[in-house]
Amino acid sequence: MTTPLDYIRDPAEIYRRSFETIRREADLSRFSNGMEALAVRLIHACGMVDLAGDIAFSDGAFEAGAAALAGGAPILCDAEMVRHGIIRRLLPAGNEVICLIADERVRPKAAEIGNTRSAAQIDLWGERLGGAVVAIGNAPTALFRLLERLDAGAPKPALILGFPVGFVGAAESKEALIADPRGVPFIAVRGRRGGSAMASAAVNALAGGLGTND
Amino acid sequence: MTTPLDYIRDPAEIYRRSFETIRREADLSRFSNGMEALAVRLIHACGMVDLAGDIAFSDGAFEAGAAALAGGAPILCDAEMVRHGIIRRLLPAGNEVICLIADERVRPKAAEIGNTRSAAQIDLWGERLGGAVVAIGNAPTALFRLLERLDAGAPKPALILGFPVGFVGAAESKEALIADPRGVPFIAVRGRRGGSAMASAAVNALAGGLGTND
Repeated sequence: MTTPLDYIRDPAEIYRRSFETIRREADLSRFSNGMEALAVRLIHACGMVDLAGDIAFSDGAFEAGAAALAGGAPILCDAEMVRHGIIRRLLPAGNEVICLIADERVRPKAAEIGNTRSAAQIDLWGERLGGAVVAIGNAPTALFRLLERLDAGAPKPALILGFPVGFVGAAESKEALIADPRGVPFIAVRGRRGGSAMASAAVNALAGGLGTND
Repeated sequence: MTTPLDYIRDPAEIYRRSFETIRREADLSRFSNGMEALAVRLIHACGMVDLAGDIAFSDGAFEAGAAALAGGAPILCDAEMVRHGIIRRLLPAGNEVICLIADERVRPKAAEIGNTRSAAQIDLWGERLGGAVVAIGNAPTALFRLLERLDAGAPKPALILGFPVGFVGAAESKEALIADPRGVPFIAVRGRRGGSAMASAAVNALAGGLGTND
């Protein structure tokens, strides 16, 4: 027999202490209600309380996204990791969660438009874009392409969650969104930080989930 | 017609510039060869060059993991997001990528041992643990439980990738691994930071992947 290690094993208690720590350490004063819960979820997903300062959002963005989900809107994701981070049982209307990165039409479309597969899949979303919740957690090119499609008259989503990550285009694509969101509500994180865990955490917050999911 | 936005669309060029930026900004001087490539991949996954300072690893850990994968070792993941971040075509031996969090045996096992589902799945890995590459990118309880299983005589994996994230147990579980890795090679990130993107990026680096995967 060996001695068990000393750590907290109860999922509800882990959540409770996590959110308590975040609320104690992070400056959440500029957020209210839904956006505060979403900010907590984002910080929870990455372990960094200073992320709070980089969160950008349009007025009413949380409410627009939550209402869209409640109304059955699909969730369009740029990466399989985002799709798999979304907790299905939290979704209020059995919402579809769609990622087309592996669709067979993506590679020829990418060649046709001279862009990444991540970007090319946006073109395949087509009419489903209208009223959808778009969750971009990986590719800056996907967010840039989405803005181009909106400029070209594509139907407007209910909300854009802008969380591309990295060193080439991530900060720039999010600044382009924030500077001109094309009339679409948005929530984003400025700078190089982002990622699929944040994008799916944002969806989970919109779905009302601050509960346990060990 | 609308004016296209100004951004880099070529996946190879995006990778090249990303890695160039990371190598210019990050202090990688204490890494060599494989570990340097892995550190670059970790930084690429999170957008933070200062992560380099938090990377901990045992001597020969990269080589142990790369050799295990080349020899056909399975990859055991604690979360579906980790599993979906692993780029299958990079894997050298068509390696199995396993996550049991949704297995029907997990919930009763969690109740039996009084722990999270993430931790309970470790018990279900059983003999497959021997010689495997273990990638923990979500739950501190999974890493703690793995250490307990090793203490109880479970077969040793070839490598532990320790990247749990968050505010309760993440830093502590990784420090427990680093302080006493039970004779198992390891790579980890100290502190609260971590996550599924880092865990899968580490696997992709072990698989030899510094190429493009738009």
